[in-house]
Amino acid sequence: MNSDELPIAAIATAVGPAALAVIRVSGSGCVRLLSSRFSRPDALRSAAGHTLHHGAVHDGENRVVDEVLVAVYRAPASYTGEESAEVFCHGSPAGVRRVFGALLSAGFAAAAPGEFTRRAFINGKLDLTRAEAVNEIVSAQTTDAHALAMDRLSGSVERAIEEIRAQLVGIMAQIAIQLDYPEEETGPVDADRMGLKEAGERCRSIASTCERGRLYQHGARVAIAGRTNAGKSSLFNRLLRQDRSIVSETHGTTRDYVEALIDVCGVPVRLFDTAGLRESSEAIEQEGMRRSSTVVASADLVLYVVDAYEGPTREDAERLEQIPRHTPTLRVLNKVDLGGDPSRHRSAASELSAIPVSALTGAGIDHLNDAILSTLLDEKAGSGGGPTPATVIIDSERQRDLLLRAADAADRAVESLSASLPADVVAVDLQEALEAVGEITGEISSAEILDEMFRGFCVGK
Amino acid sequence: MNSDELPIAAIATAVGPAALAVIRVSGSGCVRLLSSRFSRPDALRSAAGHTLHHGAVHDGENRVVDEVLVAVYRAPASYTGEESAEVFCHGSPAGVRRVFGALLSAGFAAAAPGEFTRRAFINGKLDLTRAEAVNEIVSAQTTDAHALAMDRLSGSVERAIEEIRAQLVGIMAQIAIQLDYPEEETGPVDADRMGLKEAGERCRSIASTCERGRLYQHGARVAIAGRTNAGKSSLFNRLLRQDRSIVSETHGTTRDYVEALIDVCGVPVRLFDTAGLRESSEAIEQEGMRRSSTVVASADLVLYVVDAYEGPTREDAERLEQIPRHTPTLRVLNKVDLGGDPSRHRSAASELSAIPVSALTGAGIDHLNDAILSTLLDEKAGSGGGPTPATVIIDSERQRDLLLRAADAADRAVESLSASLPADVVAVDLQEALEAVGEITGEISSAEILDEMFRGFCVGK
Repeated sequence: MNSDELPIAAIATAVGPAALAVIRVSGSGCVRLLSSRFSRPDALRSAAGHTLHHGAVHDGENRVVDEVLVAVYRAPASYTGEESAEVFCHGSPAGVRRVFGALLSAGFAAAAPGEFTRRAFINGKLDLTRAEAVNEIVSAQTTDAHALAMDRLSGSVERAIEEIRAQLVGIMAQIAIQLDYPEEETGPVDADRMGLKEAGERCRSIASTCERGRLYQHGARVAIAGRTNAGKSSLFNRLLRQDRSIVSETHGTTRDYVEALIDVCGVPVRLFDTAGLRESSEAIEQEGMRRSSTVVASADLVLYVVDAYEGPTREDAERLEQIPRHTPTLRVLNKVDLGGDPSRHRSAASELSAIPVSALTGAGIDHLNDAILSTLLDEKAGSGGGPTPATVIIDSERQRDLLLRAADAADRAVESLSASLPADVVAVDLQEALEAVGEITGEISSAEILDEMFRGFCVGK
Repeated sequence: MNSDELPIAAIATAVGPAALAVIRVSGSGCVRLLSSRFSRPDALRSAAGHTLHHGAVHDGENRVVDEVLVAVYRAPASYTGEESAEVFCHGSPAGVRRVFGALLSAGFAAAAPGEFTRRAFINGKLDLTRAEAVNEIVSAQTTDAHALAMDRLSGSVERAIEEIRAQLVGIMAQIAIQLDYPEEETGPVDADRMGLKEAGERCRSIASTCERGRLYQHGARVAIAGRTNAGKSSLFNRLLRQDRSIVSETHGTTRDYVEALIDVCGVPVRLFDTAGLRESSEAIEQEGMRRSSTVVASADLVLYVVDAYEGPTREDAERLEQIPRHTPTLRVLNKVDLGGDPSRHRSAASELSAIPVSALTGAGIDHLNDAILSTLLDEKAGSGGGPTPATVIIDSERQRDLLLRAADAADRAVESLSASLPADVVAVDLQEALEAVGEITGEISSAEILDEMFRGFCVGK
């Protein structure tokens, strides 16, 4: 039996008290192996694919471990393409571990991260861009990130890459004619006409979307800074409340700062409130300040809050100076609700290049959210897009690096053609471009490439 | 359509990034409703029960939300006894919310806690003791707690209650003869002979297992206290490491103490290390001490650690005095590995009634674990068991209260019989005992009883 077919098992659902949990198994003979721990072994062994069977899992020594439903899948109609099954058990962590233990004792091996998807790839169920999309879907933190990853799972990247590949193959065929018939006059080869330049530009254009894709997938760190009583915590709470899709709210274990995960126009933003200890006991203030600076220094964006009522002070100027130069900063003029002259606020805001808001009433917060998104996109994604705007957004650095390798090789081929170098020189670069593109989808792959790629997956996928 | 048959939906797996998540739906017409958001509606609508179908969920506006497998169940062969389905989607929290949102937009109502199990009860798929066992299984924190709950799910409580009920019904029949033929001489009625006393004792005996059952299910709080440098944190870490089945390790958000969930001979124990701030900065020591006392005061058991090398000091005596009298305390003589005379340690330990251990080498820790378990069982479960040892262990306070009500009613009936009161007086008490017992399994139930019971369930169950 090939090692890729050995029966493996993994807990496939998140761990926590819940109604249901799923344990997934796959591999040659896995249904027979599973039946050795099932109350109705014959029913399972003779089951048709895509059917469900009620019964009990036992520990091999007549102790019932859980009441379950088992889904049976027959090769090749399964996720992995192999014979597979899923065990639906009660969702208590202690119980799931007991059922999983019963399967290990029957002879199943615990699956490595991504091993199910790796087998699916090896059995031709999906290419590598879709395999990566599976992992991206699972780790998506916002609806927008999920939608982008779903688009990739549906094959948008695979199709774009296949188009480029077809283009490169066509060009290679034209070059090959020159190689085969070097003495014949085939006329000067025009890189433009052949679409070689365009192919390189398309690679570069898709590669340039990676930073944007990663911003949606992996998010950004945003710190709120400012003087005491400028309303940092109020702004923090307002940004939390405004976004209905709050993902989690955690408190720094040391109370130095408070952080929360919020959804800013589709980008998962980890928001830090540096207020915390500043207003706390004297003795530990120093330490709190130090940690606040650390948070600010490691932020992708700082929201600096100024009190509109008091106006910017010398202390504000000093603190703004302390923010590292490379860290983009948005100035926020808070408390514009506090009476006073609206036109004065407007002129103060424009003088400071600040965004006027009221954390209390929520005024200006939508505008602030837009500004956060566009600043992050500008910073993270640069000006984005090449001359040929890409129709897909990638998230994988592996794909980006291979696209850039293909683009560089295409550029070299273009140069060789302009310099009228021999066709075999051009062919070498074209071949490299083709190989890079082939590696993206996995048409060309090696065990090491796969090991590297699937290492980042979650277990059970 | 009865409101109990309206199509409901719930996310049934724990939330978190994972390979898979399951959304469960149930109710009359739920497969047709689900098909309105499925890429192959006809396949779903015509599906046989216990079959699986691959396809995509869309949002009703042609946007694909996820690639899924759908399991179809036809009434009455389903968990609820109704037409049901399960949607297996990718496990990202953002994605699961999108799929769930698509189902709500199709017309599904979000299920209330325990609503699936409630419907299963109403449709006669399980009695109330099994329904409660389902929830107990899901929230079991240790293997032993899970095994006890599995036993209840398999009907152990239901069978025990049915036996008692049958006994009471038999007695009622004998009393009824006296009611029907009051003028005939049926001879003196003997409560002993009829088994009435025994029935009451069996109720009381099962009721008395509740504290023990709850100890396994809900666990206990154990605090480690002692002087600075007695080795509290080492003991904490040793107890953590010793038990392979550590469930989680969390840090108190304010660093006042560290806590962890460990498995002590099957009992989930929340272990608190009160070291923390004692050794920290002067300024906040006071506050840390105060919080430590709070932890000790609310513990079910205190492990008081004495340094074997230094021996017990006056400070130890003072601190032991401060532990509330009603809180059971185990004295632990730590550092018995530190050279010195083993016989001296033994005599010190026996003088202190302390358990000698070495947090460093692990010596004596198994003994300490046994002592923790037996102290908790003694304290929580009292002397346990009546004259008739119970064969089941219950966890439900609802069941316990009803068993005690039945036992009290049976006792009253016994007294009435001894006092030769008229048969109709005896019948009233017997009737109450029967009703209490009937309520346990749900043979007798009302909407309010069910509301109260299922409120504590998790959603999706």
